[in-house]
Amino acid sequence: MPNTDRNQGSHATQGNNGQSEMNGAESLVKTLLACGVDTCFANPGTSEMHFVAALDRIPGMRCVLGLFEGVVTGAADGYARMADKPAATLLHCGPGLANGLANLHNARRAQTPVINIVGDQATYHRPFDAPLTADTEGWARPVSVWTRTATDAASVGADAATAVQAACAAPGGVASLILPSDVCWDAGGKVGVPLAPLPVPKVSPDAVQQAARLLRSGQPTLIVLAGTALREVPLADAHRIAAATDARLITPMSNARVSRGRGRFNVDRVPYSGDVARDKLAGIRNVILVGAPPPVTFFAYPGKSPRPYPEDAEIHVLARPEQDLAEALARLADELGAPSVSVPASVAPRGIAKGAVTSEAVAQTLTALLPEQAIVVEESVSFGRAFYPGTVHAAPHDWLQLTGGAIGDGLPLATGAAVAAPGRRVVALQADGSGMYTLQSLWTMAREKLDVTVVILANRKYAILLGELAGVGANPGKTALDMLDIGNPDLDWVQLANGMGVEAARAEDMERFAELFGMANGRRGPFVIELVI
Amino acid sequence: MPNTDRNQGSHATQGNNGQSEMNGAESLVKTLLACGVDTCFANPGTSEMHFVAALDRIPGMRCVLGLFEGVVTGAADGYARMADKPAATLLHCGPGLANGLANLHNARRAQTPVINIVGDQATYHRPFDAPLTADTEGWARPVSVWTRTATDAASVGADAATAVQAACAAPGGVASLILPSDVCWDAGGKVGVPLAPLPVPKVSPDAVQQAARLLRSGQPTLIVLAGTALREVPLADAHRIAAATDARLITPMSNARVSRGRGRFNVDRVPYSGDVARDKLAGIRNVILVGAPPPVTFFAYPGKSPRPYPEDAEIHVLARPEQDLAEALARLADELGAPSVSVPASVAPRGIAKGAVTSEAVAQTLTALLPEQAIVVEESVSFGRAFYPGTVHAAPHDWLQLTGGAIGDGLPLATGAAVAAPGRRVVALQADGSGMYTLQSLWTMAREKLDVTVVILANRKYAILLGELAGVGANPGKTALDMLDIGNPDLDWVQLANGMGVEAARAEDMERFAELFGMANGRRGPFVIELVI
Repeated sequence: MPNTDRNQGSHATQGNNGQSEMNGAESLVKTLLACGVDTCFANPGTSEMHFVAALDRIPGMRCVLGLFEGVVTGAADGYARMADKPAATLLHCGPGLANGLANLHNARRAQTPVINIVGDQATYHRPFDAPLTADTEGWARPVSVWTRTATDAASVGADAATAVQAACAAPGGVASLILPSDVCWDAGGKVGVPLAPLPVPKVSPDAVQQAARLLRSGQPTLIVLAGTALREVPLADAHRIAAATDARLITPMSNARVSRGRGRFNVDRVPYSGDVARDKLAGIRNVILVGAPPPVTFFAYPGKSPRPYPEDAEIHVLARPEQDLAEALARLADELGAPSVSVPASVAPRGIAKGAVTSEAVAQTLTALLPEQAIVVEESVSFGRAFYPGTVHAAPHDWLQLTGGAIGDGLPLATGAAVAAPGRRVVALQADGSGMYTLQSLWTMAREKLDVTVVILANRKYAILLGELAGVGANPGKTALDMLDIGNPDLDWVQLANGMGVEAARAEDMERFAELFGMANGRRGPFVIELVI
Repeated sequence: MPNTDRNQGSHATQGNNGQSEMNGAESLVKTLLACGVDTCFANPGTSEMHFVAALDRIPGMRCVLGLFEGVVTGAADGYARMADKPAATLLHCGPGLANGLANLHNARRAQTPVINIVGDQATYHRPFDAPLTADTEGWARPVSVWTRTATDAASVGADAATAVQAACAAPGGVASLILPSDVCWDAGGKVGVPLAPLPVPKVSPDAVQQAARLLRSGQPTLIVLAGTALREVPLADAHRIAAATDARLITPMSNARVSRGRGRFNVDRVPYSGDVARDKLAGIRNVILVGAPPPVTFFAYPGKSPRPYPEDAEIHVLARPEQDLAEALARLADELGAPSVSVPASVAPRGIAKGAVTSEAVAQTLTALLPEQAIVVEESVSFGRAFYPGTVHAAPHDWLQLTGGAIGDGLPLATGAAVAAPGRRVVALQADGSGMYTLQSLWTMAREKLDVTVVILANRKYAILLGELAGVGANPGKTALDMLDIGNPDLDWVQLANGMGVEAARAEDMERFAELFGMANGRRGPFVIELVI
């Protein structure tokens, strides 16, 4: 039976002093704003109605609706990758969180700060096990650096301030605050005091000197750069080091954000294929990690090593992910007395590609037409193989990727990045199979009039899996082909986009693609190009 | 480092005796078939390729592809509700499972048997924490009655047989079998021996006699029927009891499957609104549970009881969910000496409704036009209020509902039900907001040419939430309305359906709706009607 003293619903009532008392939801919104969190990606439900009402009463929070929670969480990830500060989510109970988990998994792998707010049953209602009741905390914890269930209106403001501090602690992560509905509606809310950001630890002098010794030894050495080391300044320092020592630079296959393009230093990625990677990295004796875990193949394969580098290479850590990566690289470059180096001159662009649609042709046209300071979101492992290496000389841009392998992140990331960076064009290079996971993103792009050019790479199959099945050594029969072929019927992305209020057109050759791509980038709002490949 | 003795990938190799040795995946497929599991709803990934290859080599398993895991798990739920036996799922790693969790939550609340197979990293690859690695077991456990991670090829067949037994143990549930890729590809698979179904315990004589005493007492008594008590024969016995004792019968608001329509006994549901329910159940002194939990409101509201029945009513259990509900009702009716009763005569149908689209008008047209033995899948809490009470006199049919409140279950349930029951028309009454969660279901309906008539109830808002916000006492402002209104832009379901290969048309009045509904039910394959409300 409920504690009837507690659940009398005294939201926004008059206190004894005649002042309007805050309820918990209002204190939460005010705390988030005080902490600089001013954007909320939301798909609310009944248990979040007092939070929604508080958002209404308190100005300053931009609320962006997603029609599915995977859109919401992926957009929060894309937003923070570009804004360098977290957005909030607003999800509905355990199952609403569950729908958002895959993209929170990607955010976890991207080390993205997210204030993940999950409404839930009232504290006293939970024991009755009503239909929506689920193990909300249990589902949140594996993707979160911090998880807490708020217990009352008086403390939820302080909870929120702690969540922001936890999410932003280097390298960044998901802070999940579970919000029972009575915590929102009860009176007595107090605005939480914003907490100072936790300091980012610097690497020790020993770590710098040990790395310098290895690099001076003349042994073939690989430096693996990840996280914030992939911004423009630390990349320049990494290139100083490489030029002075013959070390090779590389990044993981998938990265949250890389600053690249004309006039910037380029770094290759570890190839997706373990065989190709082992060929590329043959002879390496030392691996120095800068904010990266030791490279590993995406999956295991019978009889193959899980390591894309030689088995006898030694692993050394210059900086752990939670340390100051840029500072570590600058100190190492100085320790080595490495002179500054210039970015290699860009080759003249070859102009737009013509004729048949190939991965290389798309990269060539991207190089010719990508707008200055574009944000490229890439989710296309198979057909997209040439995109990254082929766009080194495109206009300066940021490149965002699927970091955790949970497909269906590209369109949400593009949505959030566009919210974070008005004035910059977002270009989403999206495989059709994974695009179908979170196609609801297109509707949010239309509603918010986001400047996104979506290129759907329509091969009408799970191409990556056909390759993997061949690797199994099987000649695929009808059953297997039916599970890997997403044609029959073909998806019509022009109609799907139109159905969600986004203009769209189809291209079947490179001339038409260039025409549409140039037009789309020059207009305001979203546009979908279905590129049949 | 990997154990290279183990990961040599000896799949389908020749044994010493010249016979082809089974790998783990093949033993798993053969075990499932031996246990009567012959349908697999799938969205596979790389780690499942050996399982896919095994499905190719071994005939007998119908594989149905879903373009999102929420489709897969919801379809497995709908299938088993109609087939009265489980289907298998095939999901890809932790994040693929995560995408399917919301509808597994609904399956858990529906007590549906599901063999939930989740591929995962190879056992020896897991410690390397490759990007897709996640807490697969941790996410599975809250929705599962049984969870196990297979450890080797020799035992995975026995694991699968145990999973089937566990899923089918009354009242039914999700059995999650996590399948590392090396367990699939290693040689030495052994077909698991199907295990005898666990017996369904009967209720004790004491429970029957106690219920009979209560019912004879003359006190106002409510009998709450759930689960298998909602099939035709036990409903008739419940009506014998009610007629003999003046007890009132009721079912939970949401049920997995109810057999109803012309010539069958009808039972009302507990109203969604706690206030309405408490009015309806005023004066009840005893509540007798038959496979049901004590009724509880869906959510808590400030100052309201979580119970939809009087606070001083006493709860009694005739049968727990895992007991034989039909047998308990038959014994109780006999104990009471209750004579058999006839189903009340049906009123003559009023013909199709004309003019404006209302909930009552839709129910009237459904009553007039619902095909014999239709399967109605309903996911529409707000506009759908008149559907259930208004279709008591429709042709005999089964009624399937969203059981766990995790929206986005209707279209997947309809997909699975149609796979399970060829020859019966499935009618999905689907709110637009929740339909958007798993709209990918339409593609599966097209590919499999499923006989489903989808009626999208297009109000272009989260209508249930507008009501809830009003209940909070707030006059919604722009921020709130923007989060509860899914217009701007309007969704065009005709284009969305066409984009996935499903024919569709729009109705804005009841005449057009009747015309389309009759036409759709008379053809083969799926058809979508966007009913603007």
